[in-house]
Amino acid sequence: MIKQYANKAEHGYDWIDLTDPEDAELRDVAKNYNLHEALVHDCLQPGHLPKYESLEAYAFIISRVYTDIDMLEADTVQELTNKVAFFYADSFFITIHRKDQPFLNKLACLDRTKGLKNTHQLLNTVVRACLMTYEEPSNKLAKSIDYYEEQVFLNTRKIPLLKGLYYLRRKIDLLRRMLILSLDTIENIDDDRGNVNTRDTRDLYVKLTTIYDSLNDNINQLLTTYFSTSSQRTNETMRVLTIFSVFFMPLTFIVGIYGMNFKFMPELEHPLGYPLVLVVMAVITIGIYFWFKRKGWL
Amino acid sequence: MIKQYANKAEHGYDWIDLTDPEDAELRDVAKNYNLHEALVHDCLQPGHLPKYESLEAYAFIISRVYTDIDMLEADTVQELTNKVAFFYADSFFITIHRKDQPFLNKLACLDRTKGLKNTHQLLNTVVRACLMTYEEPSNKLAKSIDYYEEQVFLNTRKIPLLKGLYYLRRKIDLLRRMLILSLDTIENIDDDRGNVNTRDTRDLYVKLTTIYDSLNDNINQLLTTYFSTSSQRTNETMRVLTIFSVFFMPLTFIVGIYGMNFKFMPELEHPLGYPLVLVVMAVITIGIYFWFKRKGWL
Amino acid sequence: MIKQYANKAEHGYDWIDLTDPEDAELRDVAKNYNLHEALVHDCLQPGHLPKYESLEAYAFIISRVYTDIDMLEADTVQELTNKVAFFYADSFFITIHRKDQPFLNKLACLDRTKGLKNTHQLLNTVVRACLMTYEEPSNKLAKSIDYYEEQVFLNTRKIPLLKGLYYLRRKIDLLRRMLILSLDTIENIDDDRGNVNTRDTRDLYVKLTTIYDSLNDNINQLLTTYFSTSSQRTNETMRVLTIFSVFFMPLTFIVGIYGMNFKFMPELEHPLGYPLVLVVMAVITIGIYFWFKRKGWL
Amino acid sequence: MIKQYANKAEHGYDWIDLTDPEDAELRDVAKNYNLHEALVHDCLQPGHLPKYESLEAYAFIISRVYTDIDMLEADTVQELTNKVAFFYADSFFITIHRKDQPFLNKLACLDRTKGLKNTHQLLNTVVRACLMTYEEPSNKLAKSIDYYEEQVFLNTRKIPLLKGLYYLRRKIDLLRRMLILSLDTIENIDDDRGNVNTRDTRDLYVKLTTIYDSLNDNINQLLTTYFSTSSQRTNETMRVLTIFSVFFMPLTFIVGIYGMNFKFMPELEHPLGYPLVLVVMAVITIGIYFWFKRKGWL
Amino acid sequence: MIKQYANKAEHGYDWIDLTDPEDAELRDVAKNYNLHEALVHDCLQPGHLPKYESLEAYAFIISRVYTDIDMLEADTVQELTNKVAFFYADSFFITIHRKDQPFLNKLACLDRTKGLKNTHQLLNTVVRACLMTYEEPSNKLAKSIDYYEEQVFLNTRKIPLLKGLYYLRRKIDLLRRMLILSLDTIENIDDDRGNVNTRDTRDLYVKLTTIYDSLNDNINQLLTTYFSTSSQRTNETMRVLTIFSVFFMPLTFIVGIYGMNFKFMPELEHPLGYPLVLVVMAVITIGIYFWFKRKGWL
Ligand SMILES: [Mg+2]
Ligand SMILES: [Mg+2]
Ligand SMILES: [Mg+2]
Ligand SMILES: [Mg+2]
Ligand SMILES: [Mg+2]
Ligand SMILES: [Mg+2]
Ligand SMILES: [Mg+2]
Ligand SMILES: [Mg+2]
Ligand SMILES: [Mg+2]
Ligand SMILES: [Mg+2]
Ligand SMILES: [Mg+2]
Ligand SMILES: [Mg+2]
Ligand SMILES: [Mg+2]
Ligand SMILES: [Mg+2]
Ligand SMILES: [Mg+2]
Ligand SMILES: [Mg+2]
Ligand SMILES: [Mg+2]
Ligand SMILES: [Mg+2]
Ligand SMILES: [Mg+2]
Ligand SMILES: [Mg+2]
Ligand SMILES: [Mg+2]
Ligand SMILES: [Mg+2]
Ligand SMILES: [Mg+2]
Ligand SMILES: [Mg+2]
Ligand SMILES: [Mg+2]
Ligand SMILES: [Mg+2]
Ligand SMILES: [Mg+2]
Ligand SMILES: [Mg+2]
Ligand SMILES: [Mg+2]
Ligand SMILES: [Mg+2]
Ligand SMILES: [Mg+2]
Repeated sequence: MIKQYANKAEHGYDWIDLTDPEDAELRDVAKNYNLHEALVHDCLQPGHLPKYESLEAYAFIISRVYTDIDMLEADTVQELTNKVAFFYADSFFITIHRKDQPFLNKLACLDRTKGLKNTHQLLNTVVRACLMTYEEPSNKLAKSIDYYEEQVFLNTRKIPLLKGLYYLRRKIDLLRRMLILSLDTIENIDDDRGNVNTRDTRDLYVKLTTIYDSLNDNINQLLTTYFSTSSQRTNETMRVLTIFSVFFMPLTFIVGIYGMNFKFMPELEHPLGYPLVLVVMAVITIGIYFWFKRKGWL
Repeated sequence: MIKQYANKAEHGYDWIDLTDPEDAELRDVAKNYNLHEALVHDCLQPGHLPKYESLEAYAFIISRVYTDIDMLEADTVQELTNKVAFFYADSFFITIHRKDQPFLNKLACLDRTKGLKNTHQLLNTVVRACLMTYEEPSNKLAKSIDYYEEQVFLNTRKIPLLKGLYYLRRKIDLLRRMLILSLDTIENIDDDRGNVNTRDTRDLYVKLTTIYDSLNDNINQLLTTYFSTSSQRTNETMRVLTIFSVFFMPLTFIVGIYGMNFKFMPELEHPLGYPLVLVVMAVITIGIYFWFKRKGWL
Repeated sequence: MIKQYANKAEHGYDWIDLTDPEDAELRDVAKNYNLHEALVHDCLQPGHLPKYESLEAYAFIISRVYTDIDMLEADTVQELTNKVAFFYADSFFITIHRKDQPFLNKLACLDRTKGLKNTHQLLNTVVRACLMTYEEPSNKLAKSIDYYEEQVFLNTRKIPLLKGLYYLRRKIDLLRRMLILSLDTIENIDDDRGNVNTRDTRDLYVKLTTIYDSLNDNINQLLTTYFSTSSQRTNETMRVLTIFSVFFMPLTFIVGIYGMNFKFMPELEHPLGYPLVLVVMAVITIGIYFWFKRKGWL
Repeated sequence: MIKQYANKAEHGYDWIDLTDPEDAELRDVAKNYNLHEALVHDCLQPGHLPKYESLEAYAFIISRVYTDIDMLEADTVQELTNKVAFFYADSFFITIHRKDQPFLNKLACLDRTKGLKNTHQLLNTVVRACLMTYEEPSNKLAKSIDYYEEQVFLNTRKIPLLKGLYYLRRKIDLLRRMLILSLDTIENIDDDRGNVNTRDTRDLYVKLTTIYDSLNDNINQLLTTYFSTSSQRTNETMRVLTIFSVFFMPLTFIVGIYGMNFKFMPELEHPLGYPLVLVVMAVITIGIYFWFKRKGWL
Repeated sequence: MIKQYANKAEHGYDWIDLTDPEDAELRDVAKNYNLHEALVHDCLQPGHLPKYESLEAYAFIISRVYTDIDMLEADTVQELTNKVAFFYADSFFITIHRKDQPFLNKLACLDRTKGLKNTHQLLNTVVRACLMTYEEPSNKLAKSIDYYEEQVFLNTRKIPLLKGLYYLRRKIDLLRRMLILSLDTIENIDDDRGNVNTRDTRDLYVKLTTIYDSLNDNINQLLTTYFSTSSQRTNETMRVLTIFSVFFMPLTFIVGIYGMNFKFMPELEHPLGYPLVLVVMAVITIGIYFWFKRKGWL
């Protein structure tokens, strides 16, 4: 579907928006504006990563906007983000995307009323809007980390958390990677021609990068803690094992002694032999008990 | 409750302060100053995170000030911080908050006497005052870390520390997150129009960020050490287990041998069989003892 | 093989390209352009690391371009990258390399049509093209990390992964090292004489550095997690060992008691002695079972 | 004790130095120079942390200088550092401290001979001198780390090191914290009015920060290694335990078999039964021995 | 030995070079050029760390140049580096060092032919040459890390590596510390008077710092991996221990049962009692075997 949000006569530049374009539509537009075939090909790849490519007559930009889905296990570029491609020149601005992007619609309305004076301003506004879609998931991800953190630190019941932590970590890493790959787009928008608006875009980018770096640190630290608490439970197991060994090993040895079949073992003949051995074993048990108490192992 | 700290005639701008405003009051002010409904709605959400939003006619800022409560287990945005919202334009400055904020009162007095010349200076002063509330908790948190550090490193008694470490870590992480989210507010105050005062605000922000980053590093390192010392105690347990096994396994084997019921076992018939086996076992025990001594395990 | 892509008369500078040059060819060119012997020697070392050397009459640069091979175990500078050496002066530009470098060919064509006005522009374009070869492997390496991450986190079967992780880590570290060693080349291209094109080269460099730093962090974190999950499996082993010990130790002790050969053990004479001991052992087993259930160890 | 190092008539400004001032002295000076009561109160708190406070008429600065004591267990702000407070205005400079500070004396002499032209230069010189006291302990701390590193890595005897590492870590962390808290003092000295001398102060600050960050990294890494080597010794213990279990378990089982009291066990009747079982057990022991040799566990 | 590489008449400044100077020589030069006694004293300390000291009439700089020795266990400042001290003023440049420094000789020749116009240029050239000595060891250290990495990751034989890793880590840390301590020297050379050459020196410094930081990260990560693989081998040990325990514990219990001396144990009387118990034990063994197979422990 092709929409024309702005035209040269009225606004000083054309803004063509293609939603899920058919091949013919796309080829038409490419021909009209003299767009390079390789780039048009990139437009059709749904999983293409963000990039900025500067050509002589125009620039080509791929952005990825976050798409809010509620899949716990979403962890690929295409599940978590949608591609939006731009061709940008002084005289035209072309936006191409598969899914309907409401934020472009809103910007188009804004465009009509407020009248962005040139395509550089328009590009800045659109890229800024793309970046802004990363703000909401950062809050959601922070909340998820807080939830898992509570589980790991305070919950003594063993719930299997590793899978959840894995998908959380992947989401954070993937969105962070999208931001890193957008670095040169931001650098190219806020360059020498930059103004207070492009600097705002850069500020937003720096803030988002800092937030996702911090999320990344937190999830890594949480993973470390998860494994540490898991290994700490082994300590409790070791303690029980030790207690049993230390209690029973000497006792088992003693009963072994009197299980020997020597002809001449005076203790065996003695009428109080059996009760005395039982008393000795009780004394040993009590001795070990108090030794453990003093060591703080019980 | 509405107070007017400054008015256009006298100061060149209006400063309206709303403490825990009723719906009607808020709607009145919004109508007078032409404020956007969505933003007024944000003002009413007690848990809203810090943000900076620039509109054509004015800017909207949400800050969160630290509130000193003595709850050990406080770990949510609302428990640790209070929201303060600002609408800021050249001709007016509106502050909205639920709880009484003494620092605004003090600034208002200062305003009257010293006469901040414009709302940009006023905004800078107010945001700086908000930031300053993060200084005191940073010292408290550092002291708490020092206390736990001493417990973890020097105290051999096992006190359950994990819960305390968890809440400490959450407080640090949460206040640090508030600072990160305030980044674009600071960037917007100390921009091209900035002066020596706005640069001071930025310096304070950088200092606070550095302090909280360092607190974050320290608490993470402390957690690692906590788990390491906890796992080191397992070593002591392993040592005792090993000592018992190594002492008793050969002895138990030997008594097992003479517990066998073979018809022809000459040792069993010998009158010195039993005492000799006891002597052999004593020798083995002493041998193991000295072997362990040499290995440094006893 | 010597090609001349540009000449002074037409383009304002000579561009000589040597592919796998013979000794004689190289010595000829060195003599013509008065190149230092030590540097010509460096050109012939296939494993030379990137460097920038500034002389009075010209500068000498060694770059390494990524070469796409499908060897899993490739982990040396020469396996993963090819050397390209440049001599750069105002009046000439000499490129020397062993393997055919298609990107130089493409640039040469571009040169003819577009006419880069001086060798500084040409140098910038060539170095930028070298850097660009690092972009594709970064995506491949990220995908490999994602694959191993899935194996480590979600796959419970033990596949030997350590070797694969080792080669992955080496590749990342090596390419990252090449980028670090190119730092002063970039600094020398984008200095005071810099323009929008050299700044683009620096932007690309910063972006690549950030990507490889992030890959490095990810592979290190993945290694940590790999060892953690491996050590977590020991917990399961410990649990089984403990269960067996705790179940059997008291039982073995009891059967030991009644294996003693004391003359006077009333239990042994009793007709219900044996079945009662069996019942006692069953009760103990059941008791331990429920204790374990409550502890959550079963 | 009050000294006047400089006076307005001769130097253009007053420099008053108070060493361990009595209340009356301090109140006198405060009255003369119109100093705020709250700040004078801060001067009297021996444990006050570094800060910079800018007032209309003057600025108030608290620095902490390192004091060289040889207490191994010194780990508080007051044990490791002394407070020096400054009031700084164009027309006066007041230094207040409890302990005698030789470096101020030296600077005062320098002042007379060299004639610092204004209080900004004087402030810069004094703050720089304060910072310089952090240089010597950084070398001492680095040497301590080197000593402990050698113990941890190369010394196989178990010496209790944790307490020493704790106090070392605390010293590093505390001095590092003092530097972080001095950040805004440095920023305020080296601002728009800054010159080559204030930039030198900033350079010194950056260098010290880098050194202490590096010390902090090193001590943290050393702690990790300390716990790793300690846990590595558990491996040796496990090995011995395993060897004993694997050797004795099958033997103990075999002697148990022939300890059974079955009526019909042909082996028990056989005259070679006992020696044959001994031979079998010897064969098993030798078999296990060679299996262990091959596995590299012996 | 005193050499004069440049003199005021001809070059505009004196350059005095002292190699392993005697006391008298040094005192002579100090007197001629009015050098401070404390600094001359510093010149004689072979282990002095890098520093920059700015005095009124001249500046005093201590650099340390890497000295290529092949001692594996070299890990002190004096073993790895040699001291070079400079006095630098507009009219003179004095270099003092114990060992012969060929690079100074080479620079002196360069000086004569090329004629560095002032001592600031000369200082820059000399300091740059000092820094350059750190480039070669960085490549050697990287190769050593690569070697140990291969041993740790791929070699299953246990070779004692910890000592080698220790000396490698010490070398990296020490050279890195020398670079950090040279920070203010670089800052003072490349300040307001800086030009393209001093910026090159700073670029080299930044590059070296990045390389050594990366080496430091790598050796720390390698240490972590070394301990992880070492602790992973404990898993194998635990597995064997568990297998033995789980196989033999139930068997030993069963033979214990029939070792009891109860009068009335019908099984003992039965002619098939013994073979049936053997069969039962075989069945249990086979059962455990298949249970382990399914669990993947065999
Ligand atoms: Mg990541
Ligand atoms: Mg973080
Ligand atoms: Mg961090
Ligand atoms: Mg955190
Ligand atoms: Mg965090
Ligand atoms: Mg960590
Ligand atoms: Mg820290
Ligand atoms: Mg730290
Ligand atoms: Mg850190
Ligand atoms: Mg710290
Ligand atoms: Mg750590
Ligand atoms: Mg760890
Ligand atoms: Mg690496
Ligand atoms: Mg990363
Ligand atoms: Mg990182
Ligand atoms: Mg990371
Ligand atoms: Mg990561
Ligand atoms: Mg870690
Ligand atoms: Mg561990
Ligand atoms: Mg610390
Ligand atoms: Mg370090
Ligand atoms: Mg660091
Ligand atoms: Mg370090
Ligand atoms: Mg280190
Ligand atoms: Mg280090
Ligand atoms: Mg590295
Ligand atoms: Mg790093
Ligand atoms: Mg690293
Ligand atoms: Mg590090
Ligand atoms: Mg690395
Ligand atoms: Mg670590």
